Amino acid sequence: MSGQQTRQWILSNPPSGDPVLSGANSTFELKTLTLPTPGPEQVLLKVLYLSNDPAQRGWIDADADPERLYTAPVVKGEVMRAFGVSEVVESNASALKVGQLVLATTGWSEYVVINAKECRPVQPDAKAGIRPTHFVGALGGPGLTAYYGLVDVVRTTAEDTVVVSGAAGATGSMVVQIAKHIVGCKRIIGIAGGEKKCRWVESLGADMCVDYKSPTFKEDLWKATEGFVEVYFDNVGGEILQLMLARMKRFGRISACGAVSTYNNLQGAGVKNWFEIIVNRLEVKGFIVTDAIEAGKTGPMVQKIVEKIKEGKIKIGADSETVVPTKFEDIPKTWVMLFSGGNQGKLVTEIKA
Amino acid sequence: MSGQQTRQWILSNPPSGDPVLSGANSTFELKTLTLPTPGPEQVLLKVLYLSNDPAQRGWIDADADPERLYTAPVVKGEVMRAFGVSEVVESNASALKVGQLVLATTGWSEYVVINAKECRPVQPDAKAGIRPTHFVGALGGPGLTAYYGLVDVVRTTAEDTVVVSGAAGATGSMVVQIAKHIVGCKRIIGIAGGEKKCRWVESLGADMCVDYKSPTFKEDLWKATEGFVEVYFDNVGGEILQLMLARMKRFGRISACGAVSTYNNLQGAGVKNWFEIIVNRLEVKGFIVTDAIEAGKTGPMVQKIVEKIKEGKIKIGADSETVVPTKFEDIPKTWVMLFSGGNQGKLVTEIKA
Repeated sequence: MSGQQTRQWILSNPPSGDPVLSGANSTFELKTLTLPTPGPEQVLLKVLYLSNDPAQRGWIDADADPERLYTAPVVKGEVMRAFGVSEVVESNASALKVGQLVLATTGWSEYVVINAKECRPVQPDAKAGIRPTHFVGALGGPGLTAYYGLVDVVRTTAEDTVVVSGAAGATGSMVVQIAKHIVGCKRIIGIAGGEKKCRWVESLGADMCVDYKSPTFKEDLWKATEGFVEVYFDNVGGEILQLMLARMKRFGRISACGAVSTYNNLQGAGVKNWFEIIVNRLEVKGFIVTDAIEAGKTGPMVQKIVEKIKEGKIKIGADSETVVPTKFEDIPKTWVMLFSGGNQGKLVTEIKA
Repeated sequence: MSGQQTRQWILSNPPSGDPVLSGANSTFELKTLTLPTPGPEQVLLKVLYLSNDPAQRGWIDADADPERLYTAPVVKGEVMRAFGVSEVVESNASALKVGQLVLATTGWSEYVVINAKECRPVQPDAKAGIRPTHFVGALGGPGLTAYYGLVDVVRTTAEDTVVVSGAAGATGSMVVQIAKHIVGCKRIIGIAGGEKKCRWVESLGADMCVDYKSPTFKEDLWKATEGFVEVYFDNVGGEILQLMLARMKRFGRISACGAVSTYNNLQGAGVKNWFEIIVNRLEVKGFIVTDAIEAGKTGPMVQKIVEKIKEGKIKIGADSETVVPTKFEDIPKTWVMLFSGGNQGKLVTEIKA
C-alpha cells in the first residue's frame, strides 16, 4: 500500500501568553503530508481521541528554559505533541492486529506511522462501562496523577481534611473520588467554577464544593475551611493557591500538581504569602505522574480504581468527561477550552472526519 | 527594697510597612514605670544584651491574622517583645544568685521583674571564647535554627551542594559552618550583600559567596550554581528565592527559614515561578526552631556546635557578631539594621546606660 496522506497541526509560533488561534501569529499551522509505508514492526494508526492536558502548554512556551522542563519541548515546525487513543489500520507487527485500540503519542495528526513498541494496547469493557476515552481519563494520566499526588506524595490518610482545586477537572474529579472511596478522608472540599460543576463535584463525594466564580468566593472558602485543613491538592496555582496557603493547618501538606491558572501568564502576579509556609511549617511537594509510572507504581493504582468503578463507587459516566466531537481543523479550538474551564472531567477531542 | 524604675519601649502603632522611628506614627514609644518588688521565686533582672530577630517584625504587624502566627502577637500598648541576656540584680529565688547571667524574654526594658523559672542560666567561658552574646547567636536561636533547618528539616548530607541566602547573617553564617564542619557538604555557596561580607562568608568555609548587590548578581549566581543544587536554605524570600527556584536540581529541597526581604512589604511582588516546584518536583518545608526545642532535640545540637568551636573549626570571633553599644533610647534604631543588612553575623544590642 502506498503512503497514507495525513493532515497535521504543526507548532508554528511558540506563544508567550495566550495561544493564538488565527492570523499571522498563529501558534499552530495546518499541513498535509504523505506518510511513509510502515516498516517492520511498525503500524499505521488512525487517531480517534486526543487527550488535552494543561502540561502541553508548558511544552510549547516561547520563554521556557529547556533545561528546566521535565520533558523536551516541542520544536517549532514539528507536529504538536499529544497523547491519545488510536486504532491500528495497518500492521507489520506481530503483537498488534488491525482493529486493535492503542494508547500512543501520535501528536495532532489524522494518521501516524509508529513503532509497535511505542503503542500500549487497551481494551474497553462495555459491561463495566469502560470506554476508550477512559484510558486518557479515570484510568490514565489524570486518575494516576490524582492517586499518586494524594496518597504517595502527601501521604493523605482518613484523618485528613482535603481541599482540591480544579475539582471538576480531569484530575480534580478523580482526587475527590479517590479521597472519598479509597482513602476515606474525614472531609473533602472541592473548588470549581460555576454552580453546575460544584453540584456535580458534590455528587462525586465532596462534602462541599466552593464556586470560585461567585462574588462571595473568599467568604465561602473561609467558611468551608474553618479550623483549617491538613491537605491541599493544587491543580490551579495563582490566586486560589495564595488563598489556600492561608487556610492550611500547622504542618499541613500541599500536593503541587498543576498551576493551570498561570500557564498562559507566567509573568502575572506571584504568590505573595510565602511566609505562611514558614510560619505554619507547611510542606509543599511538586510532582509529575511520570515518576510513578517509571517507578512501576501505577499497576496497583489502576487496579484499585477499577475495583471501585466496578463497585459503583467511582463514577465514570458520560458526565465525568467532556468529549468534544471536533473537525480536524478545529483541534486547537477544543484544546484551549482547558484554559477557560470549559470542561467537566477530562477534556477529550474526538476527531470527526 | 522599693520598686525599681525602668524605661520600656512600648508598641504604639503596629506597622503595615517599614517600621516608623519618629513622629506621630512612631511604631514604638518610650515610657517610664516603676516595677513591683520581686515576689517569692521572682528575680529582678538588669538587661545587658538584646537579641534582634527578623521574626520580631511578624509579631507586631498591623495586618497579621493572629490565628496564623506561630506565637501571640505583641499587643498595642505592651512592651516590645525581645529575648536577651540579663543579669540577676535581686533574687527571691533559691536557684538564682545575684550576678548570675540568664536568658529571658525581657522585652525592650532596662529592668524587669520575672519568675525565676522563666530564666535560663548561662555560663560564658572565656577560655573557649564563649561570650554572653553567643547564647543568642551561635549557641542560641540562630545556631539551632541553622542546625535544625539544614540537618533535620531537609536532611542535608555530604552528597549535597547547598546554597544559603543571608549567608552573612546570624543564621546563615552558622548554616555555612555547620554545612562545612558538621555535615561536610560537597559544595557550599553563600549569598550575601557586599564584597566584604562575601569574603567573610568564604572565610567561614563557603566555597564561594555571591554578592546580591553586584550588577552581575544573576550571572554570578547562575555560574555558581551550574549543574543546579540539591539544597537551598532560604533566609530572605522574595527575588532571591525566585531566582533560586530556577536553580534547584530535580527533587531538590528548600528549607524555608525566613523571608526577611519581604517582612516590611507583604504586599510586594510575589514568587512568580511556583511552577518550578511542580516541574522539578521540589520539596519545600517551612520550619520554626521552636519545634526542635519543644521536641527536646536541641541539646545534642548545641553539644556538636560547642565541640566544633573547641576544635577551632566553627568560628565565633568578634567578626561573627555585630554587637552595637546602644543608648536605651536608640534601641529601635539598632533593631531596624536587621532590614537593611547592616549586620555581619548576629545583630546584638548592648544596652549602654
